[in-house]
Amino acid sequence: MDWLDKVKWAENGLVPAIAQDAASRRVLTLAWMNREALALTVETGEAHYWSRSRAKLWRKGEESGHVQKVKSLRIDCDEDVVLLEVEQQGGIACHTGRESCFYRRLEDGRWVSADPVIKDPREIYRS
Amino acid sequence: MDWLDKVKWAENGLVPAIAQDAASRRVLTLAWMNREALALTVETGEAHYWSRSRAKLWRKGEESGHVQKVKSLRIDCDEDVVLLEVEQQGGIACHTGRESCFYRRLEDGRWVSADPVIKDPREIYRS
Repeated sequence: MDWLDKVKWAENGLVPAIAQDAASRRVLTLAWMNREALALTVETGEAHYWSRSRAKLWRKGEESGHVQKVKSLRIDCDEDVVLLEVEQQGGIACHTGRESCFYRRLEDGRWVSADPVIKDPREIYRS
Repeated sequence: MDWLDKVKWAENGLVPAIAQDAASRRVLTLAWMNREALALTVETGEAHYWSRSRAKLWRKGEESGHVQKVKSLRIDCDEDVVLLEVEQQGGIACHTGRESCFYRRLEDGRWVSADPVIKDPREIYRS
């Protein structure tokens, strides 16, 4: 598809994909997409990523239920990064049970946790 | 420095750095930082990046004046991505003269420019 061919995939076949919450405007996650993940994201309206550590395609929320419903998809001027505006199901994007993966802030030379845990991870991942 | 050692730099010595406007909450840019760029960013309060295409350290706005004043710095759960909340000088982050580099949106299978040019790039880069 033409719009997929426009994307400048890195040598490993991936692009960084930023997800931002449509309501809170928080940046939730940065994950990676290959061509198939991006195509599936648009086809289904739910964010799909490529897990580099597990080397597999992954539908965000497939275990946790914390699906990201995609409201819009943007690409940057270099065509090598995409930005998803999402409705974050459950209000939790991070596997630690927090809204955003960016929950630590630099304060006086230390990374300090700045956001509350909304749900205990042991209750999110019950497998 | 301890907080710099916490960062999980990729094999090429870089991490992705997302800049978000503190006022408009728009995601402005994704660029890359090496250790020196991140250290300088914190030391000076202005975003510094590593340009992969030019293979050099770069202070955002050094030519354009579109400096990014850093309000806060966050790191994600995997410690391999950082997020800057910035005051974007001039309200323009993109070299095309737009607020954000993410100015194209996917609409009916095409990437469509969705944001106005605020300033002609020929007026931004007069060198």
